[in-house]
Amino acid sequence: MKMKRSSRLVDMTRFLLEHPHRLVSLTYFSERYGAAKSSISEDLVIIKENFEQQGVGSLLTVPGAAGGVKYMPLISEEEADRVVGELCEFLESPDRLLPGGYLYLTDILGNPEIMNQVGRLFASVFADRKIDVVMTVATKGIPLAYAAASHLNVPVVIVRRDSKVTEGSTVSINYVSGSSKRIQTMALARRSLKPGANVLIVDDFMKAGGTIQGMVNLLEEFQADVAGIGVLVEAEGEGEERLVEEYVSMMNLGGVDMKQRTIQVAPGNYKKFLTRLTEGMESE
Amino acid sequence: MKMKRSSRLVDMTRFLLEHPHRLVSLTYFSERYGAAKSSISEDLVIIKENFEQQGVGSLLTVPGAAGGVKYMPLISEEEADRVVGELCEFLESPDRLLPGGYLYLTDILGNPEIMNQVGRLFASVFADRKIDVVMTVATKGIPLAYAAASHLNVPVVIVRRDSKVTEGSTVSINYVSGSSKRIQTMALARRSLKPGANVLIVDDFMKAGGTIQGMVNLLEEFQADVAGIGVLVEAEGEGEERLVEEYVSMMNLGGVDMKQRTIQVAPGNYKKFLTRLTEGMESE
Repeated sequence: MKMKRSSRLVDMTRFLLEHPHRLVSLTYFSERYGAAKSSISEDLVIIKENFEQQGVGSLLTVPGAAGGVKYMPLISEEEADRVVGELCEFLESPDRLLPGGYLYLTDILGNPEIMNQVGRLFASVFADRKIDVVMTVATKGIPLAYAAASHLNVPVVIVRRDSKVTEGSTVSINYVSGSSKRIQTMALARRSLKPGANVLIVDDFMKAGGTIQGMVNLLEEFQADVAGIGVLVEAEGEGEERLVEEYVSMMNLGGVDMKQRTIQVAPGNYKKFLTRLTEGMESE
Repeated sequence: MKMKRSSRLVDMTRFLLEHPHRLVSLTYFSERYGAAKSSISEDLVIIKENFEQQGVGSLLTVPGAAGGVKYMPLISEEEADRVVGELCEFLESPDRLLPGGYLYLTDILGNPEIMNQVGRLFASVFADRKIDVVMTVATKGIPLAYAAASHLNVPVVIVRRDSKVTEGSTVSINYVSGSSKRIQTMALARRSLKPGANVLIVDDFMKAGGTIQGMVNLLEEFQADVAGIGVLVEAEGEGEERLVEEYVSMMNLGGVDMKQRTIQVAPGNYKKFLTRLTEGMESE
């Protein structure tokens, strides 16, 4: 199909946005649009410059016969700080405090536009790691997992606290919830993970880290590897030792005073994981 | 910020794709790009023509002072049949059969690219209805709900089969599962739905429809209205009466023979809901 440059730019932009982290050959575009590869290359320069200028990502060019172009969703530090700053303010409302030092996050997790931004943030933090699958535990981590996975273009697997008949045989483990110290069970369908898979673990909230440590242990049962751990909100426990050491958090919940009903929500530790990428992005 | 037309087209395409069903004024684009409204209008024509030609949606222009442009994710009938046809073939593998006449769908529900396509399909079917929120029941309906909601640009609420401490006070009802005839409970956080809200109910699988009927009953408790019901797969029960009458299905599971281990997966009833929209889209 022959297309004018203006229409081609619209179509390529949409195509790249819908297929992040996928290497697309110039031949594919050249044939799709009935255009010379040199014209396609010029279009890609325009798209790349715009994405970088707007702080939403970059195009990576891989030279050679097996090469092509790959759209990497990234977020500039400025844009990340803006997104996280807005979220912090939004979360700092005292009526979000729930019994046990938890935070009401359901409305935020239910907002696809916010989840899309947070997904881009996670994808930006973990862009340079080899990730085959994103894993979370039902229910509240699921929107985060999909948001990250769709920007990384990998599948999602969901660990459950029950084992439903509709998933076939499952592998289950017991774990100790860090906060309540109770023994709980989590299960994952046997079919859903291959040995050696590189797994990004995400969840909405982490206190002591028992649930995340449970997922790490479950991965061992599948002989799969932890590629990274990301949480939306980490909360300071009262003198509790954290079970998980290496993780990325977007926000940090502190200063919880249940009597005074005050909370403080500050940016998490994401910045030190982001910088490297943003620098790489801007220097290109 | 002053931008060349080529860069502006890239940026407007991305902006519109990221904000479906949102009315954006021409003044906004005009100021964003430091360009005359007449130029913006020309750009929008190019984008609209491309989207319609590719069968991925259209731009709706609302005239007047409070007017602007709105991106509607739609899918052409041809594209819908292609997406559903591929899914049917994919699902027809006998090793997907699970005890009780269920189908293993976890891998499909875990694939963000497939969910994105199915979400566009749902958004296309329900594009002309007034929808304030998409509702589903944990766990397997969640990816579908987010996929549809992100194309409709509305929030998601998730009904749970337990009631977790981290959601505040909840409203719960009992319902009878159509297939197992057992009494079960479902609960929804009180904060998550306003009276009078127009709710699109989605789920991955429907047999007799007990779970969906449960969600309909739950909406009554919140004095909210059913704006539509959509399921990925409907299954024929053996002489069972269906509890839910008006729904849209993407696929139809029939001919299940547990002994011979054969199944047939055919397109669902979506076509009659889609046609009207596609015609409208093509005639513009």
